[in-house]
Amino acid sequence: MPKPAAPEFDCVAIVGVGLIGASIGLAIKERKLARHVVGIGRTKKTLEKARERGAVDEAAHSLARGVKEAQLVIVCTPVEKIVETVREAAQHVPPHALLTDAGSTKGNIVAALAAPLPDSVHFVGSHPLAGSEKTGPEHARADLFVDRVVVVTPTKETPAIALGELRLFWEALGARVMFMSPREHDALVAATSHAPHAIASALAAATPPAALELVAGGWLDTTRIAAGDPELWRQILLDNRDHSLRALAKFAKVLSELRQALKAGDGEALLAILEAGKQTRDAVGN
Amino acid sequence: MPKPAAPEFDCVAIVGVGLIGASIGLAIKERKLARHVVGIGRTKKTLEKARERGAVDEAAHSLARGVKEAQLVIVCTPVEKIVETVREAAQHVPPHALLTDAGSTKGNIVAALAAPLPDSVHFVGSHPLAGSEKTGPEHARADLFVDRVVVVTPTKETPAIALGELRLFWEALGARVMFMSPREHDALVAATSHAPHAIASALAAATPPAALELVAGGWLDTTRIAAGDPELWRQILLDNRDHSLRALAKFAKVLSELRQALKAGDGEALLAILEAGKQTRDAVGN
Repeated sequence: MPKPAAPEFDCVAIVGVGLIGASIGLAIKERKLARHVVGIGRTKKTLEKARERGAVDEAAHSLARGVKEAQLVIVCTPVEKIVETVREAAQHVPPHALLTDAGSTKGNIVAALAAPLPDSVHFVGSHPLAGSEKTGPEHARADLFVDRVVVVTPTKETPAIALGELRLFWEALGARVMFMSPREHDALVAATSHAPHAIASALAAATPPAALELVAGGWLDTTRIAAGDPELWRQILLDNRDHSLRALAKFAKVLSELRQALKAGDGEALLAILEAGKQTRDAVGN
Repeated sequence: MPKPAAPEFDCVAIVGVGLIGASIGLAIKERKLARHVVGIGRTKKTLEKARERGAVDEAAHSLARGVKEAQLVIVCTPVEKIVETVREAAQHVPPHALLTDAGSTKGNIVAALAAPLPDSVHFVGSHPLAGSEKTGPEHARADLFVDRVVVVTPTKETPAIALGELRLFWEALGARVMFMSPREHDALVAATSHAPHAIASALAAATPPAALELVAGGWLDTTRIAAGDPELWRQILLDNRDHSLRALAKFAKVLSELRQALKAGDGEALLAILEAGKQTRDAVGN
C-alpha cells in the first residue's frame, strides 16, 4: 500500500473562517495538505463553529500567535481588512512564509502590499471564484473549490517559487488557477460579479412587496445574490468602484436600448437584444 | 381497496405541447384526470415527442378536429397566437366546453376574448407560474405545477361554475390558484417576471466575451433566464409593454441611485440599497 503523501505544510493559518476560510480548512484537512490548521478570527462563535466542523484544528484570537508557525497564511477577511491583516501577519510569520488572500478585489490590495514585507516573506493575491449568498462556516464545504477558477495576481516582484507554490496549493484543492494582472482581474470581475450583484440588489429592492406572492423561478434566480451580506458587498463595490461603474454603465446602455425598443414597439430591435443575451448565456451553459 | 376516482374529463385538448403544454399532459395522465388527452400543434416533431413521452394520447394537426370532443381546452401557444386559437377552438368544441390558456400575459388576451363566444362555451384566462429557460416537451415534468402558483383571471362575465371547474383543475395538478384581475396580474408579473427577464437579457448581452471565463455562481444565476426563447419573450414584453416599462423604470431608478452612491463613494447610501435588496430577497427564501 502506498504511503500517503507527506503534508505540503506543517502549519497553515486561515484568518477569517467564514464560508471561504472554513471551506479552505475543510479542503486542506480532507486532502491532508497540512499537519495543523490554525483558524484565526474575532468572533468566538464563528471560530468555534469552524473548529466543530473540523475546518481548523485550533482556534486563535491573536493573529500574532496564530500565524507564528504558519508556512502559509490565507487571509479570508472582508476586503477592507485584508491589507492591514496581511501586513500584521507578515511581522509574525516564520521566514519564507507565503501569504495570500481570498478577496474579491485585487488592484488596491496588491498595490498596497507592494511595499516590501519583511525579508523572505511574500504576499501573492488570490481570488477563488466560489462565493455564495450563503455565508458563515456552517455552509462551508470541502469541495467548494473543485473545478472552480482561482485567479492569482502576481506582480513583477513576485518570485516564481512563491507563485508556483500558491498555484500548487489551489490546484491541490481542486481549483483551476488562472494568472492575470490585478487590474485585468478587477475589470473582468466587475462585469461578471460586481455589476451583477449591484443589479440583483437593485432589482430586489425595486420589487414591490405586493408582487412577492407571484415570484417564480426567474425572479428567484435573477435576485439570488441580493441575499449576500450587504456590508461585504459595500466594501467590494467601493474597492472596485471604477471598474464596477464602467460595467454598470455598459449594462445600463443595453437596458436603455431595450427599453427604447419596447417603448417604440420595435419588435426587431427588442428581439436582437434578447438574442444577443441568449447567445452569451448559452455560450456558458448551466 | 377504494376504486380510483373517475376521470374529471372524458377528453382534454392541449394546443401547443412545449414545456407547459406537455407538462400539463403528463400531470393529467399521471393523476388520471382525463380519459383521453389530445395534443394539437403545428410542429410534427414536437407533437411526436409529446406523444412518445406520454404527455398526450393522440396527436392532431387540425385544431377543429382535435378539440371536437374536448370538455376542456388549454391553449399553451406563444402569447401572440392565443386569442385566435381560442376563437377558432370555440367554434368546434362541444357545448359547455371550458377554454383556458397558459399565457404569461392576461390583459390583452382576456379583453380580446370578452366578445361573446358561441353559446355555453367559456374562456377564462390562466397563467401557471412555472416557466423555465428550458423549452420543449423534452423538459416537461408531471410535477411542474406542484406548489406553484397559477393565476386565474376571471371577469364580471365569468360564470362561477366555469371558474370553479378551472380552479379544481389546476389544484388537481398540485398548484395553488390565485384569482385576480387581468390588469393586476399584468402589473405584478411585470415586476416579478417580465422586467427581470429584460434585465437578465441586457446583463448577458452587456457581458464582454473576454469575461466569460470568470463567470461564477452570481452571474450564472442572475442571467439564467436570458437563455429563454427570445421570440416568446419578445411577444410577452410587447404584449405587456406598459406595465413592463413601468417596472423597468422603477428598477432603473434604484440602480441609478446605487450608481450615484457608488460614484460618490457614499458607503451609507450604497449599504442602504444593498440592505433593502437583501430584505426583500430574504422575505421570499430559496
